[in-house]
Amino acid sequence: MRITRGYQDWPAGSVLVEFGRTRVLCAATVQEGVPRWRTGSGLGWVTAEYAMLPSSTNTRSARESVKGRIGGRTHEISRLIGRSLRACIDMAALGENTITIDCDVIQADGGTRTAAITGAYVALADAVTWLGAAGRLSDPKPLSCSVAAVSVGVVDGRVRLDLPYEEDSRAEVDMNVVATDHGTLVEVQGTGEGATFTRSTMDKMIDFALAGCARLAELQAEALAAPYPGELPGSAA
Amino acid sequence: MRITRGYQDWPAGSVLVEFGRTRVLCAATVQEGVPRWRTGSGLGWVTAEYAMLPSSTNTRSARESVKGRIGGRTHEISRLIGRSLRACIDMAALGENTITIDCDVIQADGGTRTAAITGAYVALADAVTWLGAAGRLSDPKPLSCSVAAVSVGVVDGRVRLDLPYEEDSRAEVDMNVVATDHGTLVEVQGTGEGATFTRSTMDKMIDFALAGCARLAELQAEALAAPYPGELPGSAA
Amino acid sequence: MRITRGYQDWPAGSVLVEFGRTRVLCAATVQEGVPRWRTGSGLGWVTAEYAMLPSSTNTRSARESVKGRIGGRTHEISRLIGRSLRACIDMAALGENTITIDCDVIQADGGTRTAAITGAYVALADAVTWLGAAGRLSDPKPLSCSVAAVSVGVVDGRVRLDLPYEEDSRAEVDMNVVATDHGTLVEVQGTGEGATFTRSTMDKMIDFALAGCARLAELQAEALAAPYPGELPGSAA
Amino acid sequence: MRITRGYQDWPAGSVLVEFGRTRVLCAATVQEGVPRWRTGSGLGWVTAEYAMLPSSTNTRSARESVKGRIGGRTHEISRLIGRSLRACIDMAALGENTITIDCDVIQADGGTRTAAITGAYVALADAVTWLGAAGRLSDPKPLSCSVAAVSVGVVDGRVRLDLPYEEDSRAEVDMNVVATDHGTLVEVQGTGEGATFTRSTMDKMIDFALAGCARLAELQAEALAAPYPGELPGSAA
Amino acid sequence: MRITRGYQDWPAGSVLVEFGRTRVLCAATVQEGVPRWRTGSGLGWVTAEYAMLPSSTNTRSARESVKGRIGGRTHEISRLIGRSLRACIDMAALGENTITIDCDVIQADGGTRTAAITGAYVALADAVTWLGAAGRLSDPKPLSCSVAAVSVGVVDGRVRLDLPYEEDSRAEVDMNVVATDHGTLVEVQGTGEGATFTRSTMDKMIDFALAGCARLAELQAEALAAPYPGELPGSAA
Amino acid sequence: MRITRGYQDWPAGSVLVEFGRTRVLCAATVQEGVPRWRTGSGLGWVTAEYAMLPSSTNTRSARESVKGRIGGRTHEISRLIGRSLRACIDMAALGENTITIDCDVIQADGGTRTAAITGAYVALADAVTWLGAAGRLSDPKPLSCSVAAVSVGVVDGRVRLDLPYEEDSRAEVDMNVVATDHGTLVEVQGTGEGATFTRSTMDKMIDFALAGCARLAELQAEALAAPYPGELPGSAA
Repeated sequence: MRITRGYQDWPAGSVLVEFGRTRVLCAATVQEGVPRWRTGSGLGWVTAEYAMLPSSTNTRSARESVKGRIGGRTHEISRLIGRSLRACIDMAALGENTITIDCDVIQADGGTRTAAITGAYVALADAVTWLGAAGRLSDPKPLSCSVAAVSVGVVDGRVRLDLPYEEDSRAEVDMNVVATDHGTLVEVQGTGEGATFTRSTMDKMIDFALAGCARLAELQAEALAAPYPGELPGSAA
Repeated sequence: MRITRGYQDWPAGSVLVEFGRTRVLCAATVQEGVPRWRTGSGLGWVTAEYAMLPSSTNTRSARESVKGRIGGRTHEISRLIGRSLRACIDMAALGENTITIDCDVIQADGGTRTAAITGAYVALADAVTWLGAAGRLSDPKPLSCSVAAVSVGVVDGRVRLDLPYEEDSRAEVDMNVVATDHGTLVEVQGTGEGATFTRSTMDKMIDFALAGCARLAELQAEALAAPYPGELPGSAA
Repeated sequence: MRITRGYQDWPAGSVLVEFGRTRVLCAATVQEGVPRWRTGSGLGWVTAEYAMLPSSTNTRSARESVKGRIGGRTHEISRLIGRSLRACIDMAALGENTITIDCDVIQADGGTRTAAITGAYVALADAVTWLGAAGRLSDPKPLSCSVAAVSVGVVDGRVRLDLPYEEDSRAEVDMNVVATDHGTLVEVQGTGEGATFTRSTMDKMIDFALAGCARLAELQAEALAAPYPGELPGSAA
Repeated sequence: MRITRGYQDWPAGSVLVEFGRTRVLCAATVQEGVPRWRTGSGLGWVTAEYAMLPSSTNTRSARESVKGRIGGRTHEISRLIGRSLRACIDMAALGENTITIDCDVIQADGGTRTAAITGAYVALADAVTWLGAAGRLSDPKPLSCSVAAVSVGVVDGRVRLDLPYEEDSRAEVDMNVVATDHGTLVEVQGTGEGATFTRSTMDKMIDFALAGCARLAELQAEALAAPYPGELPGSAA
Repeated sequence: MRITRGYQDWPAGSVLVEFGRTRVLCAATVQEGVPRWRTGSGLGWVTAEYAMLPSSTNTRSARESVKGRIGGRTHEISRLIGRSLRACIDMAALGENTITIDCDVIQADGGTRTAAITGAYVALADAVTWLGAAGRLSDPKPLSCSVAAVSVGVVDGRVRLDLPYEEDSRAEVDMNVVATDHGTLVEVQGTGEGATFTRSTMDKMIDFALAGCARLAELQAEALAAPYPGELPGSAA
Repeated sequence: MRITRGYQDWPAGSVLVEFGRTRVLCAATVQEGVPRWRTGSGLGWVTAEYAMLPSSTNTRSARESVKGRIGGRTHEISRLIGRSLRACIDMAALGENTITIDCDVIQADGGTRTAAITGAYVALADAVTWLGAAGRLSDPKPLSCSVAAVSVGVVDGRVRLDLPYEEDSRAEVDMNVVATDHGTLVEVQGTGEGATFTRSTMDKMIDFALAGCARLAELQAEALAAPYPGELPGSAA
């Protein structure tokens, strides 16, 4: 896992996450104001959009803009990322600002959604710092914890962390877990496509996942401890 | 929970599920052949589509056909129902037939997706029986188990099964669990929007959910033990 | 023809109409305010949306939300229902409220559009009563008459009322007539696809239709004479 | 009413119809083969598409291609024109050819749909002649009659034929009638938006309409009696 | 090249341009106010939409409204026409009015985009005159020059002006040039699909194009020197 | 200008082009077969798709997949890139293979379309080499020349090459030129939005552009002279 901050010049936070051959670019953009249904509440908003470059997959995937509609998988992952990030931020402290996290997959080899969440948190943290420096937060510390995510699979009966695509595609059970640096859970999504799994397998997968997320939380903290590379983004909008 | 079989005349299986004020119509339609990517494999296919009537919700919801696009939530639930049903059926035994399960929510008061899965299994079972009677199965027993689903929430710190909408909307954690009548798991989706939850809360929720699913499996078995109400559907396509 | 009022709990009016095997759910939802082009006029608005469940037809029909566009037939029928209902209501008496009538076909066996209009009127009447009870009408009696509709066909040279689908599909002429309880006409739509018809056939069809609508008006009046089943809807929005 | 044949060079039939200030261009294009659901039947197909130029209306109307969807009114009229033309042609004699009639409104001042039908018949007749000359008909005389259409309105209590837009928009009842040169009816669509009408008004409107259609049938016959202006279209596809 | 002004009754400017067999209808509609992003600037706006009638091409082309999306070529040409017209008008003098130019191709035989620009200028000039007569201009002379356009092609090694479709489709190089009556350039678009071209060929093409545009500028001036045919449009919106 | 080959692992060619702050990822994917209209011709096909990451621009731009349609600018640039590449490749030598070039802008600061063309050529060359190594070319040398592109602007009356965004946005004239390493032209697109330009300015811009393209052709040749970084892509599809 490699985390590169300040990958792009314009967004308030821009992080390239690399995880095996998987590479995801997570950019946090700040916008004054919130969606209409939230205006005047004094609360901020955090949302996310996930997409894959056509060239990121083993076999080229068609552009959703060309197809004219967003697929179910894309919708699902965008919503997951947004929910995960909203679990760690105090919307009143954020004030009426909207942070949009764009997670664009540059290269896919399994685990893109969990890599996206892990990188998105770092981009979010940089965007929050940027807002603080600009004096635009209602309260100085909106982030109550960090969030990171791993995928756990069962292949040939053995529980394994973060499988590359080739193994992932023949996993009997597939689970994505989002957890905080406090060791609490944010999201658990376990699926046995064409198979079912026992309670004890599930327990073992959660054990693996929590250990994996704890390790990622340390890497995130290390990355954020370093000073921001280059000058701070100017407009950041 | 009330299960009414044979609710409509045309589909091979048609089940009205009622669960508190929630009512979902689950219809299983049979079509010869499978999607192109599966043709010639000898395997069947099961898919699902979920939708809500505009008048089913407390406040009228706009029609997705009028908006011209399907929302993320609808996509997500349709995919969940399809995956859940595919876990209990042997595609080789089904042969090159496609079964489409339409889950249309007539009235919503929380738990529509879990009611839909529970009813969809019964409609699927009726459609499989219909196919068998028509001599169109490759193997007589394609269903290896039954599937049912419940939602579990934590409200005011207490774990609770199948909350109505009003309580559901203020749950701190929300989990949907799909399980078989063998007590194994098919899907686990736990979410803490705006909050996180501990490992021990999660364990307790799974306990509740497995007990709930076991009870539903019995109700499904009872419903299916009765003879088919009225004459069997003719065309069923 | 069977009319069940109060079929759903949330809408201000909710009517299930059954007509042979045809079943249509008509729900009237009330919303404060009117579309922008009518704002400030002091006049209300009534509109309708018609749709068929995929499982309602003999052969499953694809969802229009999945296709991403509404077909010509759906558009045509939605507009017909809306126009028909607007003929019997005084928009000034309604005040700046919008009533949307959703007509969703649960099961189709011919005559769904005429059944929809007939049921929609009853749902509209209940919604108007609800508005009156809530003190939100500008004038106590906005409904000037009732409307009902029948289809008339010519099969094998004989004029017939409300054909089931199998006969309807081989009718030489097909006519839908909407009429009031005063015996006046609201809409007449006669079509001879692949054939033409004489003036005298047309006259005979109108005779049949007016008699049919008069009988339906009595059934509507009977249904509305009964007290509202269950408690009145709360929010009704 | 002025009918100009051969208005464009490429289509097999191309007719400009002028009716007061209303001008509609009706072009009949011939294509070998029929839609997939009709292939192999030996039968031909006739279909129509209606549209208005943005600049044709009193106030500019937005392009449906820009809006990305076709409105209900456009759908309705396209379907009406297609049905009307199919009433006068023997599909077996046409053979497996498709004729598409594009009716594009150049200038609108009321009665565009009836002008379109009247012109479309003439374009269709020219396309049929062209197919005959090319030896591509299964049978020499596919047209069994001619069709023409008028609109009838009631304004200030008086029945009137083919109102210009300004009067049409305040008509109490509006009826479109399609009839053949044999005096039989093809379509009757009568509407009383915001009002209802009596049986005797309806009878009187039909009288007016049949007289009007008979006059148009004569004009169509005269126009078609003249030789084709200029050389016959070459490709005509 | 034939220019007919006042072709339609409603728009403020309406010009039919004929060029060989190519015929384009250019209509300029006036609307009070400007798009939101320009409101309050005191500046006007000019925009254009280009489209082809399905029956205008040698082989019928599908309607973009039916396809539900506008193609790349249509977008490109609409943008080109808009940019070209904006080069000759002083937006401050126009004041906060929007002029939309609809260029609809009635018949296509090569050079539709250049014919459209040439006709659109004349329609724009009439619309500006109309605005002046209505006292709605901020300044009496918003047009600083006229614009016209030609296409130049290289066929069999020879440079040629305004090729008909058959020759155009086998041109080795294709260039569209928009120029003013002052001899300055507005747009140059040269393309060698499947081939490349030398600097000297390019220079020669520009020579031809500027001469062609100068001749068109004279024809535009002649056409505009005549009085407006018929009465001035009333509403013109 | 920096050119990095082999940036991604899956596509047959993958090039990151950096030009000032502008960064574009150009990926060439190979697919067996050609579009249906070209099947059986023995000729190959090359096409391109251009898009911008939402986070690539100074102010976040909305995703075209979310908007549900591709904008005019995107269409225009995709078509330009495709045409430019097709000018340098012999389709018969390519054989019935399709090469799709995805140009995704990672960061935008002016000149993204010309950077995309310049990088796309290098990716195309790598894909052609890959096809040759796989023995899938009809003829060993399909590329007849190289292509590169620059933008030229006039700012404050002075001709300038490849302006960054801030200067580009206030250029009086903007020209994009695509040229080969033989010094011939492929595309010339010059625009004077809100202004016009003289023949002599145009000549000067072409001089600058041809010199710039010649320099880029050298850089492309240098980049391609180096051995492919890392192992050759495996599937490359």
